[in-house]
Amino acid sequence: MEQSRPLDALNSARHKRVMVELKNNSTFVGKLKAFDIHINVVLEEAEERENNDVKRKLGIVFIRGDAIVTISPEE
Amino acid sequence: MEQSRPLDALNSARHKRVMVELKNNSTFVGKLKAFDIHINVVLEEAEERENNDVKRKLGIVFIRGDAIVTISPEE
Amino acid sequence: MEQSRPLDALNSARHKRVMVELKNNSTFVGKLKAFDIHINVVLEEAEERENNDVKRKLGIVFIRGDAIVTISPEE
Amino acid sequence: MEQSRPLDALNSARHKRVMVELKNNSTFVGKLKAFDIHINVVLEEAEERENNDVKRKLGIVFIRGDAIVTISPEE
Amino acid sequence: MEQSRPLDALNSARHKRVMVELKNNSTFVGKLKAFDIHINVVLEEAEERENNDVKRKLGIVFIRGDAIVTISPEE
Amino acid sequence: MEQSRPLDALNSARHKRVMVELKNNSTFVGKLKAFDIHINVVLEEAEERENNDVKRKLGIVFIRGDAIVTISPEE
Amino acid sequence: MEQSRPLDALNSARHKRVMVELKNNSTFVGKLKAFDIHINVVLEEAEERENNDVKRKLGIVFIRGDAIVTISPEE
Repeated sequence: MEQSRPLDALNSARHKRVMVELKNNSTFVGKLKAFDIHINVVLEEAEERENNDVKRKLGIVFIRGDAIVTISPEE
Repeated sequence: MEQSRPLDALNSARHKRVMVELKNNSTFVGKLKAFDIHINVVLEEAEERENNDVKRKLGIVFIRGDAIVTISPEE
Repeated sequence: MEQSRPLDALNSARHKRVMVELKNNSTFVGKLKAFDIHINVVLEEAEERENNDVKRKLGIVFIRGDAIVTISPEE
Repeated sequence: MEQSRPLDALNSARHKRVMVELKNNSTFVGKLKAFDIHINVVLEEAEERENNDVKRKLGIVFIRGDAIVTISPEE
Repeated sequence: MEQSRPLDALNSARHKRVMVELKNNSTFVGKLKAFDIHINVVLEEAEERENNDVKRKLGIVFIRGDAIVTISPEE
Repeated sequence: MEQSRPLDALNSARHKRVMVELKNNSTFVGKLKAFDIHINVVLEEAEERENNDVKRKLGIVFIRGDAIVTISPEE
Repeated sequence: MEQSRPLDALNSARHKRVMVELKNNSTFVGKLKAFDIHINVVLEEAEERENNDVKRKLGIVFIRGDAIVTISPEE
């Protein structure tokens, strides 16, 4: 059985909408434009959400990897 | 007596359901799809749990290693 | 499809106004003059903002990368 | 006088029951199955304890090294 | 257009008065005598300030880089 | 004048009783059996103290370096 | 103009009394006996101070670098 690595999952999510949860409890949703091995991430058409409501729209946002807890593709 | 390494235990849990507890006190359960030496982890059919109840279903979730406290296979 | 890296997004924002949010919840806005792989950042014509109001003007400010959560170009 | 290194003490505790205290104040007890230089640890027949009572039984648990404060063999 | 790096900004501030803000919310002002790639910093004629008042005078102070949030030249 | 390094001080304390203070405010006292460059430490005949009283006896305890603030030989 | 590095300032303070402030808000004063590039520090004739009063005398104390915020020579 072929063994996948965690960054493969991020690669599959490229150009798709993902939800990114941060250590400071904020949540960003946007199209995953780029990531690197530090899990630094860039989202396009990004918005910050609070309790599932849009708190503000950001366009492009760079998120520093060490601030991130989870990244999940929107289904 | 053969000596095992911690990542061997994660390798044995691959494709099985595991519970992942995070530093921010949240708990994720899902099938362990991938991990790396930073303990970055990807779960499939994942859900976040709170007090043993399902809080939300996530499908695939990437969890950054440095946010993780424990990973344990569901018995 | 060509794959971009997170620092490309910062490079595109060079000499443009960006908003930088920090782990200590403060927000700086200024022209992105320089950055490096640690995400250390230098802003020109910088100001610290609080609830969208200018809290103080700083001129040039060096921000240590590990204090940063997000960097987003002003639209 | 022969000088020992800290990991020697962990090696002597292999296959024995140890108590592991974490930065989040939780305590795990179990048989030390594996450890590495990051102090990532795997316990077998593990249980989480609270005020010396068993809080839950876990079977196998992987604990990320940077979450750990102390490891001590049960006497 | 020539691209500058963040440490260039610190180099330009050498021997000038800078304000250094720390993660523990304290603020130091002094003449920037030295810095390195970890952003360890030495100030001369330094003073700690609180609400823009001088809290105490320190002469020379070494500040560990990882305690620093921002460094800005006094205008 | 000969220049000493910090680990020399730990080496001089080997096999002697030391007090170890941790970031979580707990205090351990015991005979310093081993240490390494990460300041991982092993104490023998160890006890945890609270307000100078013995809180519990531990025998051997491994303490992860990054949890440690100070180590001082008992006079 | 000759450019100094931060560790030069510590070297000049060797064998002199310094005040060391920690991230946990405690303060140690003593003669700087040794330091290294991690800013691990050893003080002799050390005492912990609280509000400028001596809280306890320690003799020799090893302080782990990552616990330190500032080091300043007593004038």
